[in-house]
Amino acid sequence: MFQVNTPLVSVLRRISSVQTFYVPGSDERKLNSSRKLPADSVIYDLEDSVAMNRKGAARQLVFQALEQYDIGKTEKTVRINAVGSGLEIDDLSVVLRSKYVDALVVPKVQSPKELEFVSRMIDSIAPESSRANIRILACIESALGIMNIREIAQCDPRIDGLIFAAEDYAADTGLMRTASRTEFMYARQRLATAASAFGLQAIDMVCVDYQNPEILEAECKEGRDWGFTGKQAIHPKQLEVIQRTFSPSQKDIERATKIVEGYQEHLKKGIGAFSLDGKMIDMPVVKWAERLLAKAKMMSPPEKS
Amino acid sequence: MFQVNTPLVSVLRRISSVQTFYVPGSDERKLNSSRKLPADSVIYDLEDSVAMNRKGAARQLVFQALEQYDIGKTEKTVRINAVGSGLEIDDLSVVLRSKYVDALVVPKVQSPKELEFVSRMIDSIAPESSRANIRILACIESALGIMNIREIAQCDPRIDGLIFAAEDYAADTGLMRTASRTEFMYARQRLATAASAFGLQAIDMVCVDYQNPEILEAECKEGRDWGFTGKQAIHPKQLEVIQRTFSPSQKDIERATKIVEGYQEHLKKGIGAFSLDGKMIDMPVVKWAERLLAKAKMMSPPEKS
Amino acid sequence: MFQVNTPLVSVLRRISSVQTFYVPGSDERKLNSSRKLPADSVIYDLEDSVAMNRKGAARQLVFQALEQYDIGKTEKTVRINAVGSGLEIDDLSVVLRSKYVDALVVPKVQSPKELEFVSRMIDSIAPESSRANIRILACIESALGIMNIREIAQCDPRIDGLIFAAEDYAADTGLMRTASRTEFMYARQRLATAASAFGLQAIDMVCVDYQNPEILEAECKEGRDWGFTGKQAIHPKQLEVIQRTFSPSQKDIERATKIVEGYQEHLKKGIGAFSLDGKMIDMPVVKWAERLLAKAKMMSPPEKS
Repeated sequence: MFQVNTPLVSVLRRISSVQTFYVPGSDERKLNSSRKLPADSVIYDLEDSVAMNRKGAARQLVFQALEQYDIGKTEKTVRINAVGSGLEIDDLSVVLRSKYVDALVVPKVQSPKELEFVSRMIDSIAPESSRANIRILACIESALGIMNIREIAQCDPRIDGLIFAAEDYAADTGLMRTASRTEFMYARQRLATAASAFGLQAIDMVCVDYQNPEILEAECKEGRDWGFTGKQAIHPKQLEVIQRTFSPSQKDIERATKIVEGYQEHLKKGIGAFSLDGKMIDMPVVKWAERLLAKAKMMSPPEKS
Repeated sequence: MFQVNTPLVSVLRRISSVQTFYVPGSDERKLNSSRKLPADSVIYDLEDSVAMNRKGAARQLVFQALEQYDIGKTEKTVRINAVGSGLEIDDLSVVLRSKYVDALVVPKVQSPKELEFVSRMIDSIAPESSRANIRILACIESALGIMNIREIAQCDPRIDGLIFAAEDYAADTGLMRTASRTEFMYARQRLATAASAFGLQAIDMVCVDYQNPEILEAECKEGRDWGFTGKQAIHPKQLEVIQRTFSPSQKDIERATKIVEGYQEHLKKGIGAFSLDGKMIDMPVVKWAERLLAKAKMMSPPEKS
Repeated sequence: MFQVNTPLVSVLRRISSVQTFYVPGSDERKLNSSRKLPADSVIYDLEDSVAMNRKGAARQLVFQALEQYDIGKTEKTVRINAVGSGLEIDDLSVVLRSKYVDALVVPKVQSPKELEFVSRMIDSIAPESSRANIRILACIESALGIMNIREIAQCDPRIDGLIFAAEDYAADTGLMRTASRTEFMYARQRLATAASAFGLQAIDMVCVDYQNPEILEAECKEGRDWGFTGKQAIHPKQLEVIQRTFSPSQKDIERATKIVEGYQEHLKKGIGAFSLDGKMIDMPVVKWAERLLAKAKMMSPPEKS
């Protein structure tokens, strides 16, 4: 029933990661308390949250966190410094010695070549046992990255997601943040479209206004409506709202169930389209509903097996 | 006075088709009643509105409708099943035997290759007398189709239009429908831009909320403002609103006339720009007005000849 | 502290030109009064504001203006007729004999080839002393130009900026102007993104509603927020609002200063992120603030040297 060329299975596999949480790699206390976070992915950061004179210490602390922390099903991810910064080879040389790296976040990606470099480094350095499973998340932080997104999204089989870094993007392009966020519309919608086109996660911008739950909720809802599969977080109290908003709501699940059941009933009579609450329901709407229900099942607590 | 590279004539030729109406190919009663529809194009559907166990019967009913119905100037169009679905060759083998096919609607187009295939099938199967005139309308229903739209729009001379399938698009990308429709902004504006760039029709999304004329009107107006040339309909009562909204209004015609006349007057004095109601009028605005008047003339009832 | 691959210096160099003002090349009185305009660039126009029977006279008047007017630091720019119009060679043959052409505005650019042609003409005709410094501004006025913008932006080293011509764009695409300007969103944001990606100026649409300062102010603000570096003007009284809006405001400068100072303070303690007014401040926000302060310094009256 689904489109021939759409990799639905991989889309579902990927939606497990709806919140990604940044932990400064140089802050031993925060690294330690990240063990108890209910996030889907924890990103140990070696880049922007680490001052230049703490980069070496951060690498060692992150390596220890990778090796020693038991964080259950939460993914262990490391954000390295940008390819070309002069710091990236040391970052990779240290963290890729651990076999507990689930994914690398590569910042400031502007073209395929940065990701191809990181993928070759994984081939060369990572332990043979984990090498094949290390994924790459590309952070898009510049206008050039957005212009080149189609090539970036397809350049290496390890690429698993695209992340939109709004504050860096504003710095690169000189655009001014407004409450409406319309200044980011082209960039965010193009990124989400590219991610969907090539079966990748699309991780939306950080909400820097972390004291205001209404803004966070509105941003989450907008990102979800636009096709993002998850959102970055910088504060633990953002996690619950992100998780809740990116999961299908009870109301959505009920509507989707009515659509699928109604369609099955009409199909028995040879009817391919029907009306529900004044709206025409046919195959495309049914597919949307089936996908939403599959996602809801995926995100609910697993049954004992 | 018009731009060197803009095929204005072909743009005008194409705007005759502002409403396209879907008729389920398996529903004999609806096929029959479609004869009296005041639509510009009727699309006999073999795809989503036809249940899997009715595909064969639908092909025959649609073939009969092509051969036997006299629907005047309304275009006869067939939506086949997607290339790659396993159904498309049988669809084409049956419907292309008729010499009354004006156009084929190809669903789920993601790259040039689906359209190139259909165009080769027309070369092979369609009667020699009609072969050269069969046009192709490409339905864009996925993020990949939107990413590849520039290549899709240029790949074959038979391509005459791009159709945006909003519900399928939402199913493919996982985006959530909102009343504002901003979730579709990138996809719809990119599609309309590509259509305009390559001289094609741009047919906007179906309004599924067919009981609510305000929503339909707002959707029509938005589509028209964004450069769409027409809109799909799924209910006969949607046709009048679509026709009215996509035609130039009396008010627009009056303003355009004042602009063109004012320009001619000033031109005689060697002045290339003037002020009208507090706005600066120069060549670009004049061209817009000339185009609107040409469109209005095109869409008005033909004079006896 | 800035991104490795971002050409900040060139971005700063370019922001000196925030308002560009069109003067009809055939209007001796307006050419003469343009000498006193406080614009960053004056564009002597040979195209849309000049009637067809005045083209020859306009070329001579513009040549005189180039040679004889002393307009201080204001850039002297000429808009030629479109490549392919049959007028462009005569335009170039006359104006490029002057060594005071800072830049050429090329209208109706749809692909790299128009710009490559103009650049070759500069190589052939312009005086050797000024040849290397003549820049090209590409006016994008069609859907095809927007589709091809990535190639256009990169095709020749003389290209210095992209200009969005809204009225021509509406004429080409058939879209209808609304007060919200959302019909231009894709085109404007794509153009601004391409400009930023390749280190070019992005010059926003003319505000034709020149009697209404509120509309001009809203358009300016939106363009600035979306990453445009300047705006075209058609009336002298538009210049002040454009200049003011595209310059960093006192409030922005104060906030940026607090961000940079706060960051420096925290950095001394080895802390890479802190909270200001309830918002998380880290590297990307600091970079934005540094860029804004650099721009403000650039645009303030130069110190005596």
